[in-house]
Amino acid sequence: MVGEIVAVGTELLLGQILNTNARYLAQALARLGIDIYYQTVVGDNRERLAGVLSRALARSDVVITCGGLGPTADDLTREAVADALGLPLVEDEAARQVVEGYFRRRGLDLPPAGNRRQWLLPAGARALRNDHGSAPGFILEAGGKVVISLPGPPAELRPMFEEQVLPYLSALPGRDGTVIVSRVLHLCGIGEAAAEELVRDLAAGSNPTLAPYAHPGQVDLRLTAKARSEEEARRLLEPLEEEVRRRLGEHVFGADEETLEAVVGALLRARGLRLALAESCTGGLVAERITRVPGSSDYFVFGAVTYANEAKERVLGVPAETLRRWGAVSRQTALAMAEGARAVMGADVAVAVTGIAGPTGGTPEKPVGTVYFGLSAREGSWWRKGSFTGDRETIRRWSAQEALTLLRS
Amino acid sequence: MVGEIVAVGTELLLGQILNTNARYLAQALARLGIDIYYQTVVGDNRERLAGVLSRALARSDVVITCGGLGPTADDLTREAVADALGLPLVEDEAARQVVEGYFRRRGLDLPPAGNRRQWLLPAGARALRNDHGSAPGFILEAGGKVVISLPGPPAELRPMFEEQVLPYLSALPGRDGTVIVSRVLHLCGIGEAAAEELVRDLAAGSNPTLAPYAHPGQVDLRLTAKARSEEEARRLLEPLEEEVRRRLGEHVFGADEETLEAVVGALLRARGLRLALAESCTGGLVAERITRVPGSSDYFVFGAVTYANEAKERVLGVPAETLRRWGAVSRQTALAMAEGARAVMGADVAVAVTGIAGPTGGTPEKPVGTVYFGLSAREGSWWRKGSFTGDRETIRRWSAQEALTLLRS
Repeated sequence: MVGEIVAVGTELLLGQILNTNARYLAQALARLGIDIYYQTVVGDNRERLAGVLSRALARSDVVITCGGLGPTADDLTREAVADALGLPLVEDEAARQVVEGYFRRRGLDLPPAGNRRQWLLPAGARALRNDHGSAPGFILEAGGKVVISLPGPPAELRPMFEEQVLPYLSALPGRDGTVIVSRVLHLCGIGEAAAEELVRDLAAGSNPTLAPYAHPGQVDLRLTAKARSEEEARRLLEPLEEEVRRRLGEHVFGADEETLEAVVGALLRARGLRLALAESCTGGLVAERITRVPGSSDYFVFGAVTYANEAKERVLGVPAETLRRWGAVSRQTALAMAEGARAVMGADVAVAVTGIAGPTGGTPEKPVGTVYFGLSAREGSWWRKGSFTGDRETIRRWSAQEALTLLRS
Repeated sequence: MVGEIVAVGTELLLGQILNTNARYLAQALARLGIDIYYQTVVGDNRERLAGVLSRALARSDVVITCGGLGPTADDLTREAVADALGLPLVEDEAARQVVEGYFRRRGLDLPPAGNRRQWLLPAGARALRNDHGSAPGFILEAGGKVVISLPGPPAELRPMFEEQVLPYLSALPGRDGTVIVSRVLHLCGIGEAAAEELVRDLAAGSNPTLAPYAHPGQVDLRLTAKARSEEEARRLLEPLEEEVRRRLGEHVFGADEETLEAVVGALLRARGLRLALAESCTGGLVAERITRVPGSSDYFVFGAVTYANEAKERVLGVPAETLRRWGAVSRQTALAMAEGARAVMGADVAVAVTGIAGPTGGTPEKPVGTVYFGLSAREGSWWRKGSFTGDRETIRRWSAQEALTLLRS
């Protein structure tokens, strides 16, 4: 079974946004064992879009489109799918309910006129529910082929795919049964070169394969196997994963969708510990990551973003003398911030970050990228120093990752 | 003049990497006034790649490929370009120097056997220097069309494009001399449909064009003009932008690279106001955005992430009675949080956010997505209520955007 992805939108052609949907869909189809030979991007032009769809339908079994289902005049995917298959557009009752439901949830009785276009679907299409936006998606079977049209915003496309398209595709007859399964191991506290050094010989195989890739403060190792069944692929991956974990030990903090903030959160919950944070240069990024995790209110009590020295003194009780003598970017201040944050709310553990994210503010002794981390717990205090390179955003991200790494360890 | 981008690589088809090259090249071609109607991704398969190239050459003047120029057996772009144009591959002296130079710089006298494939180019191609890798790129003119093949790694592709391809394309005699200039206006406090309603008649023109696109809490309007010079294009855009700004008024907060947090920061700085923040459901996201802006320490003094009620009471002085009577998610609590945050540090203005980001915690009266905003300033207090839909992340982002919108207004 062969699939094809068609992304629609002039903003993609102009390079104004990255085609993250194509990547997401490609990964999902690979896991289903559906081969992809082509991905296409085409603009908001009915004729060209219909042409691309005709060609895709001639060479592939399943064509997934993303984008062009909105309410405005340049949203033309519904029309182009109908053109490519020679079908009329008809009012679809289920699609109308999706659109009207969206506006009702927002307290509006009647959708604006533009949105009424959204319930005109190619005849024979089955509307897909959209819990996060106004655009219904649809699945259309015609002439032995399948067209699946999804909305462009990832926050709408992904749940629609997971909940409604994935079960549909999994049940399609005619799939040949080869599947590709990937497992991604996430590392912290180790660089890409050092990690690669430890697993270089394991990366030489062709099935399963192993490849590293790096983000600020985090290296990932992707293990991929191809087999006739998901079970068989997993059996190929297991011994490789075991060996990688043996060699990298504590550096492996999680796998696949697991994030460092979720892993840290689970550790805090399991131990019944309450967390406080004190951030300077990360400006709330650590707190933002901790609270991304649903249920984080169980263990996260308070975060202070103390940008001004005055706030470090008044809110966290950092002694003026410490700030004067050692400076705001010092291990002494980092430790005092952590102790202060812990004391304010009687938390069990607190982490503090203070540093210079740049682009200005560096000195010869403390250049941009100098960041101190402090941790205060009932058992004692710890500190670390980081020297990061990159722009302001990279230094902030790296610092947040390091703060979570310290908390985990 | 019409261009087309063909990205080559199975890792793209499998969704293992994002197609950042396509975005980079699309932006560069748009600036040159070269229209792009299609982008394609195709795997490391000689026949399919040659087929894609033939189709691209039939409908476009300039075809740019990226990827597939490496030394391994699955690097097939050279062969496929030759196939598509019916040309033989020949040893190219300049290409050989690029490859040998790369290995010489790394202290190796002779390139490995695989790398010798890299100097076989389609007959008539002009090799492009590569200062960052072993793969020579090439430019090939044939039958009134141009093929430009670039290596896949962005660190090799980008300098090669900037230094060698850009001057070539700028000087192409076939170019009609048109350039495309875009201007993106950012809106807040208004939805996509309502914004479109106000500018629908302006969107009907073909040059300049106007098109909306929406993110959580923000709608953008892209104005694009095509003209013989950048100056002329800007002259076409100016009256359109003026009219859009007249109709949308205060909803336009910035243009192009301007962010809401930077605009708000500039307003605070201009007025000499010191800002404090109190966040619950956004978990530090507002502070993180405010502090993304270099120099934000000039106006941002303190942010409190008060997840627990206890923290709202202890750090911000929210009365226990307010929390008990109205609940943590209420306008009374939002206002008390803002007043408390302002008082703690004697700031001039403070914004507070408290709401239910989900997935749990909603009630019939206050469903997931209910968020209250409070603003406290010397002149008085204001509050707003938001009802957002989407997943936890979308609700948090939307809430942060709304908090900054309130602060701006």
